[in-house]
Formats: sequence, structure tokens, C-alpha cells
Amino acid sequence: MEGLTTAESPQTAGKEPALTDLDDRHHLIVPPEPRQRPRQQRAHETKAKILKAAARSFSIDGYAATSMNDIVAEAASTKGAVYFHFDSKETIARELINHWLTALGGIRQSTAESAIPAIEKLAAFFNGSAALIADDALARAGLRLTTEAGLDTAPPAFREWVELVSRLVDTAIADGQLPASAAQRLAANLCAGFIGAVQVIQVLGDPGDFTSRIDDLVNAYLISDT
Amino acid sequence: MEGLTTAESPQTAGKEPALTDLDDRHHLIVPPEPRQRPRQQRAHETKAKILKAAARSFSIDGYAATSMNDIVAEAASTKGAVYFHFDSKETIARELINHWLTALGGIRQSTAESAIPAIEKLAAFFNGSAALIADDALARAGLRLTTEAGLDTAPPAFREWVELVSRLVDTAIADGQLPASAAQRLAANLCAGFIGAVQVIQVLGDPGDFTSRIDDLVNAYLISDT
Repeated sequence: MEGLTTAESPQTAGKEPALTDLDDRHHLIVPPEPRQRPRQQRAHETKAKILKAAARSFSIDGYAATSMNDIVAEAASTKGAVYFHFDSKETIARELINHWLTALGGIRQSTAESAIPAIEKLAAFFNGSAALIADDALARAGLRLTTEAGLDTAPPAFREWVELVSRLVDTAIADGQLPASAAQRLAANLCAGFIGAVQVIQVLGDPGDFTSRIDDLVNAYLISDT
Repeated sequence: MEGLTTAESPQTAGKEPALTDLDDRHHLIVPPEPRQRPRQQRAHETKAKILKAAARSFSIDGYAATSMNDIVAEAASTKGAVYFHFDSKETIARELINHWLTALGGIRQSTAESAIPAIEKLAAFFNGSAALIADDALARAGLRLTTEAGLDTAPPAFREWVELVSRLVDTAIADGQLPASAAQRLAANLCAGFIGAVQVIQVLGDPGDFTSRIDDLVNAYLISDT
């Protein structure tokens, strides 16, 4: 996953451009707090704001139609601040994809640790993924970006997701709860079905139904494969 | 489906700008054919060329990032010729969506007429749709456009597709081959799964596998629902 790490522009690494918003100048006229808000935390908040803005722009206009200037405007930030954190929109896209994959990894981890049969872990993993997509705009953008034809990191990200699911399928096979046939195909079919459900929700704007659609999807494939 | 018909700019309706390409001037130096290629056919060919170019541009760059100028350039045509046929890129998108829906209607028609059980008609319809998507770039673009968040005609087009599938599901229910429960949901799940499979193929670039993925999809939902 080397290709999916965040790169920082070397010229500006380590320094964030001074913010000039009211909130910041406030520190000059009020008594200083016992410990001043550290620079690192401020940088973290700015970065989060940029990622949220990019997620919105990518979701509404699509990846190709969104420029760094669009993201600067959507974040109500400055070019300097955005380029301090991300040297290109590809870098932002990679960060969003990473966020999605990391969250998926967390769901898989907690699913793996739960004391339920392996085949129920598979269902729990997709239920958890559905909840993530419903709640987390950054993860939603990350998933959407993994189906961008023009983004080099999309295919490896999709494969990593299928790989994650494959490991849950393999456990269910090892436990005798799924037949050994078509293991990799089952994982890929489930991920593709998940993507389709998200796409349809985006078109029809009906997020309330999403979780039950994912239930249908997982049930359909698990029933037909057992 | 009134919203999905092609509009022509009223100023230019009925006239197509003269073409100046070599193929056309050819007529001046070779003996005229018994019947000269009619103007209508030339207009038809130009229109097809523009639709193909738009389908390519929409597929590679996405709908939002593609301008009419991009389509003019991709078609190696003139602004006048493109605007003679289509007054906006929305109009081109509607035409591509219409092409997809019309082709689906044809597949449904021939499926409905075949002498196989209703549930097999449902499978045949999706197999036919998979073959269409694999072979026909315009239909592929039309399907992709039905998941464009920024396109007003996308949601009604998706609903029309689900409606078409619902009628096949209803027939299978009437024939006692599927239970009456969740009929509309089955149709929507199948369409969403189809979209997901197409998306994944676009990312991973593996069209050879597409038909078998659609088989898996239809089998999974039909087995779990019967």
C-alpha cells in the first residue's frame, strides 16, 4: 500500500501558513489559556476541513471535474493552507481512499474478535460497512473514488477491499460454513454489489433503505453459496 | 418518458451545416451514384459519430468534466454540426440514456416472447443486458449516466429500468415461480447489482468476466428468493 500514503510538499513540510481567522486573533485579546491550543492540533483541524470539502466536491461534481481551486473554495480555506497539507488532488483522493480502507480494517478487526460463527462475521462486516457509509462522508467519498477510472490508486484499493473480505470468506470455508468453491469470486461479488447499492442510493437519494439493501445482498450471496 | 426525448435547437432545425471533409467532396470528382447519398443519411451518420464521441468522453472523464467543446474535439466535428443535433450536453446524455432504455426494452420484448419459464426469462433478460453492455459503448454510457448525481433524467431512467425488471418479476410471481414478497425490492437489487458489476469492471478493466458475474448475481438473488 506504499502508493496510498500521503505525500507532503517538501518545501512546506513542517510549517503551516499562519491562519488569520477571527478565532485565531481571539488569542491576542483574551487571557491565554493554561495551555495554548497547540499548532499541531490546529493543523489537524485544517486538514480535516479540507478533506471534508474535497469529499463534498468529489461527490457532487465527480473527481475529474473537481480542481484544487474548487476544493480551496469549498473548504473556505486558502491555497497556501490546502497545498501545505496536500500537493495535489490525487493526494487528497488517496487520503480519502486510505480513510475508507482503514475504517474497513477496523470493522474487520472488531468483527474478527466477536464470538459469532464465521459466516455471521461476514454479514456483520458488511452491516458495519453499510453503517460506516451511511454515517461517514469521508468514507463514502473514499469508496466512490475506488471506482474512478482515471485514478491509479483505485484498482489496488478495490483489490485490497476484496482481499479483506476474502479473508473472512476463507475463515468461513475453514470452519466448514461455506464451500471452498468460488471464494475469491464471492468476495468480489459482495464488494461489487455493495458498490451498486451505494450508487443507486446516490441516484435515488434514499439512504434510509441502504442497510436493508446490504442485508438483502449478503443474504442472497450467502444463501446461494451455502 | 417525455423528459427523455431529444430536443433540437429551433433556429437550425431541419438543416445540417455543410460538411467539408474529404469523403464528402469525393462526390464532386467521381461519377454520381445512381441515387446520391441522401442528406438525411449523412445527418444520421454525423449524429452517430457525435454520440460515440460523447460516450467516450463521458466514460473517460465523467459527465461533469466533459464540455460540449470536448465532445466537438473528440468527434473531430464542428461546433455547428454538434449544435445542429444537440443543444446541450444534457440533451446528448438524455439520448444516450434513451438508447440504453430502448435497447433494454428490446431485450425484454424478445425475452417475453421466448417459450421459457418466467424465472428463466428474468435470467435471460439480465444475460442479454450483460451482452449489450459488453458490446455497445453507447448503451454502456447510457447506463453509466443513470448513476450521475448531477443529471435530472438519471433517477427516472433508473426507475424505468427497475419497472421493466419488475414486470418480469411479476410474471414469475403470477406463474408461482417466485414468492410474492419483496417483488419491487428484488428488481431494484438486481439492477443495483448489475450497476456494481459494471463499475467494478470499469475499475479493474476485466470485461471478459462480466457475463459470469451477472450469472452469479441473478443466481444469488433468484436462489435466495425461491
